[in-house]
Amino acid sequence: MVDVATDVSARETTRLIASDKVEGTPVRRSNGDKVGTIERVMIDKRGGKVAYAVMSFGGFLGIGDEYHALPWSVLRYNENLDAYELNITDQQLRGAPALASGWDTGTIDRGWERNIHDYYRASPYW
Amino acid sequence: MVDVATDVSARETTRLIASDKVEGTPVRRSNGDKVGTIERVMIDKRGGKVAYAVMSFGGFLGIGDEYHALPWSVLRYNENLDAYELNITDQQLRGAPALASGWDTGTIDRGWERNIHDYYRASPYW
Repeated sequence: MVDVATDVSARETTRLIASDKVEGTPVRRSNGDKVGTIERVMIDKRGGKVAYAVMSFGGFLGIGDEYHALPWSVLRYNENLDAYELNITDQQLRGAPALASGWDTGTIDRGWERNIHDYYRASPYW
Repeated sequence: MVDVATDVSARETTRLIASDKVEGTPVRRSNGDKVGTIERVMIDKRGGKVAYAVMSFGGFLGIGDEYHALPWSVLRYNENLDAYELNITDQQLRGAPALASGWDTGTIDRGWERNIHDYYRASPYW
């Protein structure tokens, strides 16, 4: 018996994608350079909308990782790259709003979220 | 160094919750009886909204599991139960719209989604 639920590559339809497929997906520039990895998405409990995705980068074996919040709308999957395509320079990344940890600090509010969306020139999700 | 990102219990704020915290959370009736476990959420790629959560139940070690789609809005976390509280009888569960696998069959459309939301008397998310 083939358990399709274990086939992560299949956890996607034209319109929908599974949360555990998003998790672990790399983020790359158009030239293939790896920017980071999506660790998870943070969901607005009330409306069920993705507030942002958490991308980790740098570090080794989870030690020293840094985290950035990315608006959902900037995650554009590119089949050829087998990754989300995001053309952000190292300098832009260093200047981007960072997360203190792999999720958030509990201090996140609309102003902070507006800041991320502005930085990536993404429309607010709310 | 404490890596808060590895502390799953912390991956939540007042307003937001991490996708990997939702995954694996049990669903129980008010009396504590276990109904199932949330495996993942399916996200509408375009709008970044949770279309439904996938709950598995029954089976053993993943073999023979059955899957149901639950509207996001029926997942109400109860701290005392340490689970999502959903008072659905076995009979109601047997009659609920089932998923062919742990995600979906690719045939899912608005009519099917309307069907789930109607069944659980939840407002459509779209």
